[in-house]
Amino acid sequence: MREFHLLSKVYERSAALDARVIVPPGDDMAMVRFDGADVLAAVDQIVQGRHFTLESTPLALIGRKAVTRNLSDIAAMAARPLASLAAVVLPRSWSEAQALELFEAMRTTAARYECPLVGGDISIADAPLMCSVTVLARLGPRGPILRSGAKVGDAVYVSGTLGGSVEPDGRGRHLTFEPRIDLALALAERFDLHAMIDISDGLGRDAGHIAQMSRVQIILDADRVPCSPACNWRRAMSDGEDYELCFTLAADARVPVELCGAAITRIGVVREQRGNQPCVIVREGRREIDATQLGWEHGGSGEGQPPSRPSPAEPGEGGRA
Amino acid sequence: MREFHLLSKVYERSAALDARVIVPPGDDMAMVRFDGADVLAAVDQIVQGRHFTLESTPLALIGRKAVTRNLSDIAAMAARPLASLAAVVLPRSWSEAQALELFEAMRTTAARYECPLVGGDISIADAPLMCSVTVLARLGPRGPILRSGAKVGDAVYVSGTLGGSVEPDGRGRHLTFEPRIDLALALAERFDLHAMIDISDGLGRDAGHIAQMSRVQIILDADRVPCSPACNWRRAMSDGEDYELCFTLAADARVPVELCGAAITRIGVVREQRGNQPCVIVREGRREIDATQLGWEHGGSGEGQPPSRPSPAEPGEGGRA
Repeated sequence: MREFHLLSKVYERSAALDARVIVPPGDDMAMVRFDGADVLAAVDQIVQGRHFTLESTPLALIGRKAVTRNLSDIAAMAARPLASLAAVVLPRSWSEAQALELFEAMRTTAARYECPLVGGDISIADAPLMCSVTVLARLGPRGPILRSGAKVGDAVYVSGTLGGSVEPDGRGRHLTFEPRIDLALALAERFDLHAMIDISDGLGRDAGHIAQMSRVQIILDADRVPCSPACNWRRAMSDGEDYELCFTLAADARVPVELCGAAITRIGVVREQRGNQPCVIVREGRREIDATQLGWEHGGSGEGQPPSRPSPAEPGEGGRA
Repeated sequence: MREFHLLSKVYERSAALDARVIVPPGDDMAMVRFDGADVLAAVDQIVQGRHFTLESTPLALIGRKAVTRNLSDIAAMAARPLASLAAVVLPRSWSEAQALELFEAMRTTAARYECPLVGGDISIADAPLMCSVTVLARLGPRGPILRSGAKVGDAVYVSGTLGGSVEPDGRGRHLTFEPRIDLALALAERFDLHAMIDISDGLGRDAGHIAQMSRVQIILDADRVPCSPACNWRRAMSDGEDYELCFTLAADARVPVELCGAAITRIGVVREQRGNQPCVIVREGRREIDATQLGWEHGGSGEGQPPSRPSPAEPGEGGRA
């Protein structure tokens, strides 16, 4: 059983959604119209043993990540944070001090990004620690930027550097990254963004989500992919949990090489779908590789125990909204 | 460690919330104002072994309840359903067919109450089944009805009958109840409701939430409490998981004995707080009992295993929003 596949199946059945649902499930956030306003919403969860190891991760960073990975979805839509809600299952063995430390990290992180925690639920159970966070957002300067808007001829960009976000002991940048909300809003103010996604499953798979939903093909240049220290392009494209932005816009737009403190790198182009070719190809010299096969896909059935280091990517990302 | 107590502590620290938070945490839902509109939001979760037993409960009813207990919060605010999101942790042993049955129940229940499921996240883990659902709502005919609006001199009413919702094998009305959304909207259209709550922790405790937040005392008449078959008033007031409405309004309002198919019963009055008396008193003949001590409080620390039958009430209710 694969999580992404499962969510796709669920959403297939949601075809006949209410007319108020302007952006249906399947993008980084859904959008609902009511009383003359548009609200965006997304939910995401982290589970002990899957997305973090309790042994090596301070509670403050677990609480932080539970919120920031949702804020990254707000960035991906070029939307503005509005409010957040958290449901937490606490292991029965926890002390009140531990619980408060976790919640305080969630609350202060949410507040810092102007996404105040307005609701919560706590259950104590014989279970691993689980935090699910829902974020609400309001429109940014240009309406929501969808995954489906990439146009043939677009240039493809990525922010920051990719790869190596999850270190062997479970720590790393995936716990401390800054969600790219300011960058996304600045980009949306200055440019006619066509499509955008945040990179959680790895650039290969996430560019694939743009390509599939836009019905185009994306060609990436391996030697242009901005790699984190000690990462080659292959790892940079597959590691996941980067929470950087990948976006497309007209090739003649004059995008700066840095904005809001983030490097911005042009890494490829959008072209028409061609026959049965994969939707994202990475070119390394004369070789062409199906880049969508490079991302993470964990959590299938029958694999037994959870990984000793957390799965760097939540395979459900692509199906979340 | 008690869940309700813990949530209260979390919210204490949230005192300085953003000005856009019109109804802060602590009511049935929070309300946030943006772009000229008001959106209400609440999150709630159910955990295997705490809120249901997997052995005795069909998956369709688990999925249904995960959504309806949130819809009951929308009713409690006299608001209108807008959209819902679900995060589910699936036990690793589950088949895809089981997962789809659960999600299909959530999706169809949400759709039936015009609260379409617009977002989801799935994680597969070595954990009990856990479903957290966030619901969004828009204003009803009269703005949100809060817990804090009860006035001295008000009459106190309750819908339906109370008690016996959770049967010894874990089945029962708590799995099949109809959230009182239509009733709440009909009441709000016809009357100037002062305060309202849905009964999840038991009438004693939930009336206590109204009394505390309204800074009043509530006096209930034991012989007026509408009891479900085979329940005495004490059980009717303490069992919880009824998902009926308790509300207050001016004593001279002419409230019908039935509305939208639900019985409506006048069960008490609101009066001023008096010294150190408890906030809710139930009168049985000449005896007066502190009714807030009658509700459920499960999930404390050090009690070992989860109950073999599910805890009928989620102690966090009062602190949810």
